[in-house]
Amino acid sequence: MPDDPGQMMETRVQASFERMRFMATLGARLATVERGRVVIEVPFRQGLTQQHGFVHAGVLASIADSAGGYAALTTMPAGRSVLAVEFKINLLRPAKGALFRADAKVIKPGRTLTVAEIDVIAEDGSGNGKLCARMQQTCMAVADRPDIAVAG
Amino acid sequence: MPDDPGQMMETRVQASFERMRFMATLGARLATVERGRVVIEVPFRQGLTQQHGFVHAGVLASIADSAGGYAALTTMPAGRSVLAVEFKINLLRPAKGALFRADAKVIKPGRTLTVAEIDVIAEDGSGNGKLCARMQQTCMAVADRPDIAVAG
Amino acid sequence: MPDDPGQMMETRVQASFERMRFMATLGARLATVERGRVVIEVPFRQGLTQQHGFVHAGVLASIADSAGGYAALTTMPAGRSVLAVEFKINLLRPAKGALFRADAKVIKPGRTLTVAEIDVIAEDGSGNGKLCARMQQTCMAVADRPDIAVAG
Amino acid sequence: MPDDPGQMMETRVQASFERMRFMATLGARLATVERGRVVIEVPFRQGLTQQHGFVHAGVLASIADSAGGYAALTTMPAGRSVLAVEFKINLLRPAKGALFRADAKVIKPGRTLTVAEIDVIAEDGSGNGKLCARMQQTCMAVADRPDIAVAG
Repeated sequence: MPDDPGQMMETRVQASFERMRFMATLGARLATVERGRVVIEVPFRQGLTQQHGFVHAGVLASIADSAGGYAALTTMPAGRSVLAVEFKINLLRPAKGALFRADAKVIKPGRTLTVAEIDVIAEDGSGNGKLCARMQQTCMAVADRPDIAVAG
Repeated sequence: MPDDPGQMMETRVQASFERMRFMATLGARLATVERGRVVIEVPFRQGLTQQHGFVHAGVLASIADSAGGYAALTTMPAGRSVLAVEFKINLLRPAKGALFRADAKVIKPGRTLTVAEIDVIAEDGSGNGKLCARMQQTCMAVADRPDIAVAG
Repeated sequence: MPDDPGQMMETRVQASFERMRFMATLGARLATVERGRVVIEVPFRQGLTQQHGFVHAGVLASIADSAGGYAALTTMPAGRSVLAVEFKINLLRPAKGALFRADAKVIKPGRTLTVAEIDVIAEDGSGNGKLCARMQQTCMAVADRPDIAVAG
Repeated sequence: MPDDPGQMMETRVQASFERMRFMATLGARLATVERGRVVIEVPFRQGLTQQHGFVHAGVLASIADSAGGYAALTTMPAGRSVLAVEFKINLLRPAKGALFRADAKVIKPGRTLTVAEIDVIAEDGSGNGKLCARMQQTCMAVADRPDIAVAG
């Protein structure tokens, strides 16, 4: 059983991530959990593509949104959950690559609202990465209950 | 072979939609194609959920982004393709329901850039719907080639 | 002294608007106050222009942001104040015209967060209007104290 | 007459800035012009405030939007002009301070579209600064003619 705060935070994020069935559907994995920073990765596969064979913008948005939400969660006391209330994403390049990495950083923690920015990097097979999307996201802290009712 | 413009437009959008492998992964279907308006629907299933059992915001963003892009495409001459360059989405309520419907309308067509707004409605099994997300999206027209290279 | 709720709401919004010194700097006026809807107008003048002689996007954003915030306020109980936490605006046409009108509607009221959409219409001198910008905005309710401290 | 490219770029941005009458109305000044980066500052004054005495979000958006547009312009060949097509801003803290500084950086230059991110810093009188807003903005390159007609 973990007893240092960093390990507990990572365990908590990992447990929540595993309940996100959509992340498994995407083939996404949790790569990094630090205070104020979370990285989620998804390898390329055909089932994630749009009409030109690139990864669909919705896939990038999905991993970026989850990474931002978990980055926000790492800055909150235990017993809190987090809901994304809105995000905006710029799609900077066609999403070509072997692996897509959403790297989220909290830029303003807050008691009620937390703001994160998330870079999405497209990596080819040789370790070269290019910024292919940038998200700015707002999350709201809520009491962590399974029956949460209202975002507004 | 369709010879009226409305039917040709629908055929063209349908053909592109079928090449979007990610829409099949989500279980999404094209419900309506009109000039300046496209509706995409996705039924609830466990594989689309986040940690609280609601549909993941990324699923809503994915169908809204596709619906907005196709709505933009219906306002363009044949031989054009469309890329979303950015979008912003507000998540208004937890995504609870049996069916999620992204209803996209072009609010400003343009030669280079087209702006759409997209309502995402959560429907229960009895035909009652609630607005659960709202997107504002910018698309760019590009020459329709399989080897398109740059979004910027 | 007003004793119907609609009149009280209008009086309250008007009083707050008059404390907004920046609205006077812009030459803006409060045109309509209804439950869930507020309109703010600003006539064209040279001091509001950008380098091509059109009205600066920041002017449109300023009146749209204020209109959205006040529209949110009309849906809240007395004793609440409202802060915009974020907004996104699409600039759809060059801001040419004699008068600019930000027409804000609440699309999702909430206890903590309220979301509004705001159309900005450019009117020529003959009563013809064109949509020149569209904003989507999130506001947060706060206790109405002169010394409010934190947005987050 | 300047003959090095950096000086020419600065001269060009300065000349355009001086035609922006709204910047003079705000009391804003151009502080830094580098390739891919522009800083605009505005000192506090009463005429820029909202109802609680802080600087209006629209003022921050106005200088951030101008700084982002000029940062985009510095990455383009001469004979081009730039139009902001959309922006999104998060208001992270109440805008309290003696000076507000919008620091814009291009994160993705492009032939047609350029994306910038802009930090808005609130400085007290002693040189201490806090991030009070963050903008993500999309600009479009246009041929530099006084009679430009269409944003779309």
